[in-house]
Amino acid sequence: MLIRKYTILVYLLIVSFSPLFGQHQLTLTNEEEKEIKQGETVELFSNSVKAAEKKLAPYLEKGVDVPTPKDLAGGYTHSQHKKNYFLMQKAGVLFQITGNEAYAEFIKNTLEKYSAQYKNWDRHPSKKSYARGKIFWQCLNDANWLVYTSQAYGSIYSWLSPKERKKLNNELFRPMADFLSVETPRFFNRLHNHSTWANAGVGMIGLVMEDEDLVQKALYGLPITDEKVKDNDGGSITKEGQKEAGFLAQIDHSFSPDGYYTEGPYYQRYAMYPFLIFALALENQQPSLEIFKYREGVLLKAVDALLQQTNASGEFFPLNDAQKGMSYYSRELQLSLALGYYYGKQDKGLLGLIKEQQRVPLNYAGYIAARDINKGLAQPFKKHSIYFSDGPKGDKGGIGVLRSDEVELIMKFSQHGMGHGHFDRLSYSLNFGKEEVLQDYGAARYVNIHQKDGGGYLKENKTWAKQTIAHNTVVVGKRSQFKGNVKKADSISPEEYIFSTDKENVQVVSAKESNAYQEVDLHRTLVLIKDSSFENPLVLDLFNVQLDTAQLLQLPYHYHGQLMFSSVDLQRATTLKPLGEKDGYQHLWNVAEGEVKGAFNQINWFDKHRFYTLNMATTEGESITLAELGANDPHFNLRRDPSIILNKQGQKGDNWMVSILETHGSYSTVTEASKNTYSTIKDVFISFQNNEYITVNFTNKQNEEWTFILSTVDNSDVKEHQLSLKDRVIKWDGPFVLFKNEIDQ
Amino acid sequence: MLIRKYTILVYLLIVSFSPLFGQHQLTLTNEEEKEIKQGETVELFSNSVKAAEKKLAPYLEKGVDVPTPKDLAGGYTHSQHKKNYFLMQKAGVLFQITGNEAYAEFIKNTLEKYSAQYKNWDRHPSKKSYARGKIFWQCLNDANWLVYTSQAYGSIYSWLSPKERKKLNNELFRPMADFLSVETPRFFNRLHNHSTWANAGVGMIGLVMEDEDLVQKALYGLPITDEKVKDNDGGSITKEGQKEAGFLAQIDHSFSPDGYYTEGPYYQRYAMYPFLIFALALENQQPSLEIFKYREGVLLKAVDALLQQTNASGEFFPLNDAQKGMSYYSRELQLSLALGYYYGKQDKGLLGLIKEQQRVPLNYAGYIAARDINKGLAQPFKKHSIYFSDGPKGDKGGIGVLRSDEVELIMKFSQHGMGHGHFDRLSYSLNFGKEEVLQDYGAARYVNIHQKDGGGYLKENKTWAKQTIAHNTVVVGKRSQFKGNVKKADSISPEEYIFSTDKENVQVVSAKESNAYQEVDLHRTLVLIKDSSFENPLVLDLFNVQLDTAQLLQLPYHYHGQLMFSSVDLQRATTLKPLGEKDGYQHLWNVAEGEVKGAFNQINWFDKHRFYTLNMATTEGESITLAELGANDPHFNLRRDPSIILNKQGQKGDNWMVSILETHGSYSTVTEASKNTYSTIKDVFISFQNNEYITVNFTNKQNEEWTFILSTVDNSDVKEHQLSLKDRVIKWDGPFVLFKNEIDQ
Ligand SMILES: [Ca+2]
Ligand SMILES: [Ca+2]
Ligand SMILES: [Ca+2]
Ligand SMILES: [Mg+2]
Ligand SMILES: [Mg+2]
Ligand SMILES: [Mg+2]
Ligand SMILES: [Mg+2]
Repeated sequence: MLIRKYTILVYLLIVSFSPLFGQHQLTLTNEEEKEIKQGETVELFSNSVKAAEKKLAPYLEKGVDVPTPKDLAGGYTHSQHKKNYFLMQKAGVLFQITGNEAYAEFIKNTLEKYSAQYKNWDRHPSKKSYARGKIFWQCLNDANWLVYTSQAYGSIYSWLSPKERKKLNNELFRPMADFLSVETPRFFNRLHNHSTWANAGVGMIGLVMEDEDLVQKALYGLPITDEKVKDNDGGSITKEGQKEAGFLAQIDHSFSPDGYYTEGPYYQRYAMYPFLIFALALENQQPSLEIFKYREGVLLKAVDALLQQTNASGEFFPLNDAQKGMSYYSRELQLSLALGYYYGKQDKGLLGLIKEQQRVPLNYAGYIAARDINKGLAQPFKKHSIYFSDGPKGDKGGIGVLRSDEVELIMKFSQHGMGHGHFDRLSYSLNFGKEEVLQDYGAARYVNIHQKDGGGYLKENKTWAKQTIAHNTVVVGKRSQFKGNVKKADSISPEEYIFSTDKENVQVVSAKESNAYQEVDLHRTLVLIKDSSFENPLVLDLFNVQLDTAQLLQLPYHYHGQLMFSSVDLQRATTLKPLGEKDGYQHLWNVAEGEVKGAFNQINWFDKHRFYTLNMATTEGESITLAELGANDPHFNLRRDPSIILNKQGQKGDNWMVSILETHGSYSTVTEASKNTYSTIKDVFISFQNNEYITVNFTNKQNEEWTFILSTVDNSDVKEHQLSLKDRVIKWDGPFVLFKNEIDQ
Repeated sequence: MLIRKYTILVYLLIVSFSPLFGQHQLTLTNEEEKEIKQGETVELFSNSVKAAEKKLAPYLEKGVDVPTPKDLAGGYTHSQHKKNYFLMQKAGVLFQITGNEAYAEFIKNTLEKYSAQYKNWDRHPSKKSYARGKIFWQCLNDANWLVYTSQAYGSIYSWLSPKERKKLNNELFRPMADFLSVETPRFFNRLHNHSTWANAGVGMIGLVMEDEDLVQKALYGLPITDEKVKDNDGGSITKEGQKEAGFLAQIDHSFSPDGYYTEGPYYQRYAMYPFLIFALALENQQPSLEIFKYREGVLLKAVDALLQQTNASGEFFPLNDAQKGMSYYSRELQLSLALGYYYGKQDKGLLGLIKEQQRVPLNYAGYIAARDINKGLAQPFKKHSIYFSDGPKGDKGGIGVLRSDEVELIMKFSQHGMGHGHFDRLSYSLNFGKEEVLQDYGAARYVNIHQKDGGGYLKENKTWAKQTIAHNTVVVGKRSQFKGNVKKADSISPEEYIFSTDKENVQVVSAKESNAYQEVDLHRTLVLIKDSSFENPLVLDLFNVQLDTAQLLQLPYHYHGQLMFSSVDLQRATTLKPLGEKDGYQHLWNVAEGEVKGAFNQINWFDKHRFYTLNMATTEGESITLAELGANDPHFNLRRDPSIILNKQGQKGDNWMVSILETHGSYSTVTEASKNTYSTIKDVFISFQNNEYITVNFTNKQNEEWTFILSTVDNSDVKEHQLSLKDRVIKWDGPFVLFKNEIDQ
């Protein structure tokens, strides 16, 4: 081992330990345990206890197998070891809560089996990982094991004899902690969600064993070296210029000040567990660290951020690599919800979500949440428009979520998100109630389904799902942003331009991106307009592409449902060919094409009892392509989803694509009654444009007219603007204004 | 008018009137009215009253417009007259129940507006219909008007002065009744659901006015002539050899003895109202007719038949021309459910359905149903395996529904179903829980959605939805059954061969069809097998095509979801072309193709959290085509649905297509846990076949083996069979047997 040079002195200077060492139990202290035992029986909590007892019952007598590690994920030894740590963790809290020593015996017996063999295990035979584990093929899983098992060990530590403890400490846990840290330093010091598990595991077992050395390593990492190594998935092991490591550095680097996790909510859900379980252990054992207040309480902010990034069904927005359908009903969220409630602001909306889960984690926060639900305190969880900055300092773009009535709009202009990022800058997706209107494809993957490449990422994840054309944003010259280069994309982010949600009738999110394409500046502004003249809030889209040279611009809309009406005369292809050869185009069939007619065009579709119309300000020469996924997909890995693509031959200078998407009407197959099947919008047009402003007018069938003005160069909230339009002089403050025109205008 | 030769004498001989004339109220008698007023308040009933009051409230003061008829369906005058009759009918029962004379005044005023103008109205200006109405473009709608309005008139008849009555009788109602009957005899005498409305309307107004002449015409029709005329939809006006007409003849001809309606459940839902509302009026005014016992109670059987033809969401099986999603929650079903309960066997399952509807019709049956629901008598409605014979005598094929656990299989071998029929003989569709597994496309139509040809049948209904390839049944030589000739299809039906549901573990439906293709005999047997070795019931399919000459056979499976695994090496087409030029093939893209490998092949797909595998016994040279809808569909009228097509070059003699469709496993996007994603079936093969028998064996991964034997020529239930297989002699009774083989076999 090369790196053994740190000294314990450095750390002792940094944190002064609170003298709670000696308690050992990580997630349920003696006092909490007592209070739960003496307190009233709370249904939700006791049901969760019963469920855990039921899971353990088959193993209390016969114990579990501890096989010699051999298999990869999905194989027997992998699954068995995974099962073992889940069972031991449950047994630990059950021992604390019920006092039944059978649970403690179960843990002891299992640990002794591990202890007897661990010293004989070398690194796992599979060489797939840059950081091979001993129990599993990669250290990540060994770290998972330790995070769960340290909890179990803490629960029985005082119950064990000193001799038993000493043996387990010396023969199993300290060697494992060393293995995951000093013996695998590149893994332990990496700023990455996998390494967070290692930091947490090493720290937690340190707390149990009163091993301050391990706790310090966990919190602050090992000394940094400048080795350059690649992960097996191609990601760089050390961050450029990385100066710190360990758990606190993970918190610093993983979350923006708003609690946004740069890989997006799907991965955040998984990553939250080690952050929160180690934080809980620290809060219990080293309260002076005030871990839940660290960085202005970013861990608890992250819980709220995660929950706000869900649709009306509780499913996470499918940003970056994300399998659709993962939701806050996931097992992983239980801990987040309970800790978010108890250590956070006692948000009764969190109780509402916990109640829906019908289970709580078996710790004190879970008990309190169950008790308060019993008291009838639960309320529906409230979502609202919200901005999440990205980057540790919050200056690397972000995600803007606009919500109004049943409309939910998510615009993405965050950092790329490393290996799991998509080339999707300035894209947006749109939900209405529980339905997707404009989708982000998510990941091309069927997690854990063997038929589909063993459940791993499919080839089409890279060739389609990550590509720019797979997102609702402009593609320039049929190439993806950054020509698909992750490293370049990771190096620089888009910029937030406006996020304004103070006015209920006009909410705006706007961002600029000047690096994704050379000599191209993108600026998109999405406006959610609520007005009693319209059934539902409208989405006004102002997309500007500034070009140095003429280039083809294509703006796709990934919709669902059936085309109902098009003012564009769409000619259906008699044979279908792919739309291109690379950057995702090779997967799209050319279903139909037609040139726009005049300066205003509509495409109207129907999906699940509702109608949608894309109302476009158009110019001559623009055309519409209808496409469907499925070309060059030999293994049927892609869904057969449709899209509408607006084609525009971009010229040097400003190129505006302006539209209003209206959600309207209804249809019932039971009453067979249809209502408002056509859009209320009659016209959308750019009424003025220069280097500083663009004004868009739109009218409805009642001949009402509105004007939206955007300052394209000054986003100050207080700046006073003045603009002469026809015979009027308009004055306003801030970067935009929306007003309804007098009828005589 | 040519036909005025009937005499009233004929009818008087047939039925002796019960002397209830004088009561006038059609659907709620004096006694019932009194009982409701004096009885307890029942929530569901009083809520329904309140809902009706709310609908009437805006019109009680200001009345309604009675415009000069001019528009077609969807236009103002059409909608207004339709609204008027709904309002009057409601006002009538409200007057009876509440005693509030404002409702009576509303009806009187509205009727006087009609009365003042009716004599001036000629037939409707539109010439679209062969039977033009006066108030509407077709007599059907005038008859609707009369069916509803006669109820309103009956409700206030006694309240009106004799002078007022006389005027309305003479100037409005008798002229209208004459207009719909003797002045439009071809319409009135037709055996067709439209004419049922005319029979009912004329009969109901006859009952109100104590006009026995009208009642007799309604019940028995006008004298038959032998004029041959075509309907505007191409159907023949007079049935070949038709000898009777009128309401009772409609009952005779519309329903099979099992209550099956030959056009299928979607149309039956609409047709039931005039049958039941006139029946209710007859039951109240002429109880001696015992209309609900007519033909062994076929009207009430029809109610049950309709309800049994629904999926787990209550949606009607989309047989023939049917828009999917229409369900027993439809307004039209309210009357059926309440009468079915009260006049039928007080099935508490019907109460369960009525409770879900949250409303009852405002008649006595509705009151009693509401009262009994209040008593807590409602139970879940139970569905079961059931056979519906088709044809007035029940000898024209039928529909076989097999249900086991969550599997629901519908095999169709009924009559063609006239103008709304599909060329779908021996097809089946399959549901699992609330999901379609193998679909019938339904109709290509968006009822009442203007964008889609004004909501009428789309061209693709004929070119796709009705064609044989659009159904899960064999297509011979790429041509639809009967080459798409409705008249030929209507002239002869398939034959039921087996319908056996006594044994829970092996339910069988089997039918033969020998006329759809020349020199081709089709015989399909579907077996629903429940065995503890399998997660869900299996569908074993034995399809035999006996050919005189070699012909291409194609068996499509119209599935939903994503292809997961195929033992057939499917080569995806690089450009998509239509699969053919006519008979529906022109709408299918050739997505992929591959030859089968060996004697057993599997195609496995995933849809909504569940997996499905088609396990096929195959022979060399067979191939699989994957197809998708959408070719030659210039207006995007078709859904983009996929299908799997088995291609087999049929030879002279027997050609067997044998498979087992297994529903298995599960997947959750929340836990990301997958279970049993592959089929348990390991092999399916024909182990023996001769002119009398076929035996199919199948094995699973636990090496268990089953044998199914079918007698292909003798369907007697009692016949004793004996067959020597290998070294064993098998003996059984009846046309089939399923047994599990001893392990050493
Ligand atoms: Ca990785
Ligand atoms: Ca630039
Ligand atoms: Ca024949
Ligand atoms: Mg994406
Ligand atoms: Mg990412
Ligand atoms: Mg059909
Ligand atoms: Mg039909």
